[in-house]
Amino acid sequence: MSEVDAIRRVIEDRVRALRDKDAAAAVAMLDPDIVAFEVAGPLQVPAAQATDVAATQAWLDSFDGPPEVEIEELAIHADGSVAFCHSLNRLSGVMADGRKIDLRMRSTLGLRKVGGAWKIVHAHTSVPR
Amino acid sequence: MSEVDAIRRVIEDRVRALRDKDAAAAVAMLDPDIVAFEVAGPLQVPAAQATDVAATQAWLDSFDGPPEVEIEELAIHADGSVAFCHSLNRLSGVMADGRKIDLRMRSTLGLRKVGGAWKIVHAHTSVPR
Repeated sequence: MSEVDAIRRVIEDRVRALRDKDAAAAVAMLDPDIVAFEVAGPLQVPAAQATDVAATQAWLDSFDGPPEVEIEELAIHADGSVAFCHSLNRLSGVMADGRKIDLRMRSTLGLRKVGGAWKIVHAHTSVPR
Repeated sequence: MSEVDAIRRVIEDRVRALRDKDAAAAVAMLDPDIVAFEVAGPLQVPAAQATDVAATQAWLDSFDGPPEVEIEELAIHADGSVAFCHSLNRLSGVMADGRKIDLRMRSTLGLRKVGGAWKIVHAHTSVPR
């Protein structure tokens, strides 16, 4: 399997983990020291918060049914132990309170291969201002 | 010079080009096919627009005095011909109409080494929603 294929699998596994509301699996591919820039403030989300399984589970459980993430225009660049990828992501679903979510975001991920496995060490997700 | 140092120099050269209002130099390190996610919409800025020297010059000239970019918490990851970096950037200056700009942004860059030179093939700049 090429490195590009390995990274595509990480992204697919993460989408599946979110859909399955499996917070532990969704967090498993995040480096504990991840530098996370998320859609909502602050400028940078502390790594401990970004990798918090309980907080991720609470967010996933706030959906009524599965949160769906569609990855569009994915491009992956990898060499040796460093990779980055970018895509346009669509997050959709229905919240437990009945509110519908349908959000298109820009996503960039930075990855490092550590002990043979690709880990997400940087995530930048945003919507235009 | 290590690859990390070479990339740091690209970023410093770009800051200097912006401060000098030298659009041609600022655009020189951008790949012609750059995938650009910018602070203001749309979701993705067409590469031809992101690398347009005249449009960049017009933006730089809309400042009264130099636009200042401070790069904070810069981290660079590089291996072989692939690299990415992220930082918190502060853009400040006074516009020609007297309006003051002081904006803190998140920045992620993806780079590829092409013909011995690092080029920015992906840029993601945002503010939290």
